[in-house]
This record gives sequence, C-alpha cells and structure tokens, in this order.
Amino acid sequence: MSQRVFIHDVVARDGFQIEPNWIPTERKIEIIDRLSQTGVAKIEATSFVSPKAVPQLRDAADVMAGIRRNPEVTYVALVPNARGAERALAAKVDEIVLVVSASETHNRANVRRSVAESFAGFTEVLAALRGSDVAIVGAIATAFGCPFEGVVPEAQVLDCIGRYVDLGVRGVTFGDTTGMANPRQVEQLVVRARERFSDVELTLHFHNTRGMGLANVVAGLAAGVARFEGCLGGLGGCPFAPGATGNVCTEDVVHMLQCMGYDTGVDLDRMLEASRRLEEIVGHALPGQVVKAGKSSDLHPLPAELATPST
Amino acid sequence: MSQRVFIHDVVARDGFQIEPNWIPTERKIEIIDRLSQTGVAKIEATSFVSPKAVPQLRDAADVMAGIRRNPEVTYVALVPNARGAERALAAKVDEIVLVVSASETHNRANVRRSVAESFAGFTEVLAALRGSDVAIVGAIATAFGCPFEGVVPEAQVLDCIGRYVDLGVRGVTFGDTTGMANPRQVEQLVVRARERFSDVELTLHFHNTRGMGLANVVAGLAAGVARFEGCLGGLGGCPFAPGATGNVCTEDVVHMLQCMGYDTGVDLDRMLEASRRLEEIVGHALPGQVVKAGKSSDLHPLPAELATPST
Repeated sequence: MSQRVFIHDVVARDGFQIEPNWIPTERKIEIIDRLSQTGVAKIEATSFVSPKAVPQLRDAADVMAGIRRNPEVTYVALVPNARGAERALAAKVDEIVLVVSASETHNRANVRRSVAESFAGFTEVLAALRGSDVAIVGAIATAFGCPFEGVVPEAQVLDCIGRYVDLGVRGVTFGDTTGMANPRQVEQLVVRARERFSDVELTLHFHNTRGMGLANVVAGLAAGVARFEGCLGGLGGCPFAPGATGNVCTEDVVHMLQCMGYDTGVDLDRMLEASRRLEEIVGHALPGQVVKAGKSSDLHPLPAELATPST
Repeated sequence: MSQRVFIHDVVARDGFQIEPNWIPTERKIEIIDRLSQTGVAKIEATSFVSPKAVPQLRDAADVMAGIRRNPEVTYVALVPNARGAERALAAKVDEIVLVVSASETHNRANVRRSVAESFAGFTEVLAALRGSDVAIVGAIATAFGCPFEGVVPEAQVLDCIGRYVDLGVRGVTFGDTTGMANPRQVEQLVVRARERFSDVELTLHFHNTRGMGLANVVAGLAAGVARFEGCLGGLGGCPFAPGATGNVCTEDVVHMLQCMGYDTGVDLDRMLEASRRLEEIVGHALPGQVVKAGKSSDLHPLPAELATPST
C-alpha cells in the first residue's frame, strides 16, 4: 500500500492576493471549482481581510457563495480578526486559518502587532466562533527564517505551536514565507515539533524562491509530515525579489510525489488543465515546470530516421 | 567537521552546446576562467565532437589553449571517438568523459550506434589514449529514464557501469538526460550501484526539467554520493520541451548545500557574479533562482514605518 499524502492548494488566496490586475470573481470561482474536481484535500479559497489591505480579495463572500462545493474537500479561509471570523462564518467556510509570524519583526511588518498581541487577538477570534463547528488551523509564518532577522530560533516556533495548541487548534502549518528553508532544517524542525507536539497535525507550506521547494517537501515527508500546501501553477512571488518565484507549484509537487509512489489522491491531468486555464486567466507565464515539460511518464516519438530503418 | 561535496560545472559544454547564437571563443574562455576561481572541483570545458554535429563547440582546441588553468581544477572534455581523443590529448585536457545511453533507443538517437557498438568504440578511444596520463570517466545517459522507452531497467545501468569498469575508468556519471529522475529512484539506483561497484567514484548529473533537480541532489547525498554536476545559471534545455528548463543550476545547488552545512569549497558570491556575466553573454534570462532572489542569508531592511517607531 502506498503512503497517503494530502495536498492543499492555496492559489486562490496566496496566489491571487498579489496579482496586480483584478481577477473577476467568476474566474476565481472557476479556478476553485476546477481544483475541487482534482482530488486535493483542502482549498484555501480566500481571505476575510480588510478590502483596503488586500483589494484583490474584496470579493471573498461572493467567491464562497459562488463555488460548487465538493463534500470531499475542506474549504479554508484566512481570517485576521473577529470581524473576519464573523464574515467567514456567514460564508460557511469549513476551516479558518489564523496567521502569526515566528519572528517579531515580520509579525509587526505583516500585521502591525507583536506576537503576543496576535495571540491575544486570536482569543477574540475564538470567542466570535464559539458555538460553530468550524475547524481552526494555526499558521506560523517565517517558521524557517525571517527576511529581516535571519535565523528564527526553533524555540520561537515551538512556542507558537504551544500557544496555538492552548487555543485548541486542529492543526498547525509551518510557512516558509520567503523561501529560506533548506531540507536539513526542515527535517530537524519537524522532528523537534513532532517530539513535543505529537498530536498536532502538521502541514508544510514552502516557497520555491531559491529552488529548494520540492527538496523541502521530500525532507518534510521523511520527517513524517503528510500534508503539503502549494499554489496551482506556482503562482505567487517574493515581496523582496521581483523576479523570484513564490509558492511551490502544486502540480509539480503532485507529479514528484506520484513518481515516488505516494498516493496523493490527485488526478494530475485535470490539475494540469486547471493550471493551463489559470495561466490564461492571470495573463502571464507561471513557473510551474511539469505543465511545460510534460510528465516524466510522457513518452516521445522516435526520431523519424530511427523509426524507419535506413537499410 | 562538515562533509565535503565536490561541485562540477558543465555549462561550457552542456550549456553552451545548445545555444543557438555563436558565443565568441573569448567569452567561453572568460566564463571558464571565472569558474576556475570559484572553487569548483571540475569544469567540463568543451567537447571534441565533429564541428558539423555541434557547431557551437567547433573552437574546442582554441578554448582549451586560451583558458588560464587553476591547478586545483580538473579540466574535462567530452570525447566521442578516437579522433576526438587525439584532439583532446593534443589540447592537454586532464580528463576525458565518454558517453553512452543506458537505453538502446536513446543511444541510437544520440550517436547512431547500439550500446554494444558504443563500448566497442570506447576500446578504440582507449587505444588512442594509451601512454597518456589522462583520466577517463564514463557517463551513462538516460540512467533514470528514456524519453522514448520510458523506464530504464536498473540492470541496464548496472551493466553499463560494469562495462566501464572493465575499461578501467576512474569514475562513472549518471546522467538524468531529460529530467525524469525522482528522489526515491535516485536513492534506490545509487544504493544498488554502490553495493555492486563500491570502488567506483559516482557523480550525478541532474536536469531540473520537472522541478526535481535539487530534491534529487539531496537524495543522492543521502545515498552517499559526493560529486554533483550543474550548469552555471541553469543554462541548458530539454530537446523535447522548448519552454522547459535544463540542467540543475550550479549556484542553486551550491547555495542549498551550504545552507545544509556541507562544505562545497565554493565561493558562492564569485559564482553568482559569474552567473550574472553569463546571462549578459548569452543574452537571455537564465532559470537560476538564487541570482534573482538572493541567498537565504541576505537580510532585508526593515520597512520604514517599523524602523522609525511611530510612538
């Protein structure tokens, strides 16, 4: 029996949010609907943040209302505060993701709060969710390094897990926000986290900023993680490097895992179709590689002069 | 003590050979001379093939005559036959690399010979080299899959190693010619090869065609390999997919290995400078990612509003 790995796609939130041109609501819905038919376990569909902060996701409620839900898929939305939690509940999301940075500086840059203030705010979010059956996941940004501070001590990441566990989250996601993780570090941090918090369901979210994205996925698998996030087409970027790639490409992750014999539950051909459609919608080239090169298993015709023996 | 890994750069042969526009001999020499100062262990500088087959490398002898050699670096040339071996000897290369494909079909497409005919030809090459102290390495193309046949049975790869060993080669290189390898397969094939041929120095040559290049390097390291080839800037391509990337990018490999604590002996900053210069010389964008995103250890200034506390 091959080992099951669960694929989460976050393109509709993490990918779309930095697209400079408005993506019409019906196109966002189309991509989510296509993803819903691929076999991914979770789709991060949008974010209930302030429309001023992220204008591209100002249609969060319309997106959630417009998608055709697959009961096999968990639909997730990012939520920054109690107001967002109420909007997410009204939109009937299955799961809410909270975000804090392990690095104080990055957390202040990202949400204008200290880490302690972020966790205090999460208590208010939980109060707003009381009585609902929505699941809650806690994401830890800059878990593998901070673009301002550099190395983030493991203790800070473990401390964030502990605080999330105290809040009663279902799982925790480590975000490699600016692509600083390396495979050895991933394996070490995951092993440490699993030792300390054996009951917490871990998800890994890598960026391919420096080419290490898929290597980090393999390292996470080796350390026992079974849930990985990616963006269809590899959409997304790095705020500090205009030419750099962003999130790991979901279909490239799936392709590698399938080549390695893992059971991802994903129909890769359908996902590649969705990626081609995404490229049309955003109107620019995407960094995904399997969509350009084909799958490893795609064979090529013999050169004509060999196919027809010359004597 | 951190583990030593040896980096071989092959851009001057594997990268340049598919560039459509002529690269002046002095620019080729400039790139090789820059690489000679980075700390790489080997540089594959050119190929003594027929100028008709690979016009871009018709200046092989002039390139070898023009470079400033660093005695710490092994200068390698690819040689297809006895005539090429004589030219390589005259050009005083340190090491000659022979190439055969593990797949019969690919070998016929590549060199118009069966695998057996290729090895028979290598006997003539060796005869031409008798009396010289040039080292010989045997490369096995399509070691991880053939674009025409698909899966290449391990037995065919092991058979090629055995035939090379019988010829007395110093080492063997596994080439993932069209980027079909996955990390699990790499680990399995390398373990098998090392069991059977424990004395053979193995080198791995990956392409990043489907994004798995760096993951495959990590898998090779885990299986005990200490020598990896790459192309500066990730120059190169895949003959079956015009938009696809080619060889793994040497500086991205070095960056990852350094992040992981390996001793590559490479001055990464100098290599990044060489990569920027290469991009100017070839006149088009290269897929290398660290050169765009910066190293993981490059910190960014605080956002201005945080650097100046607002009360």
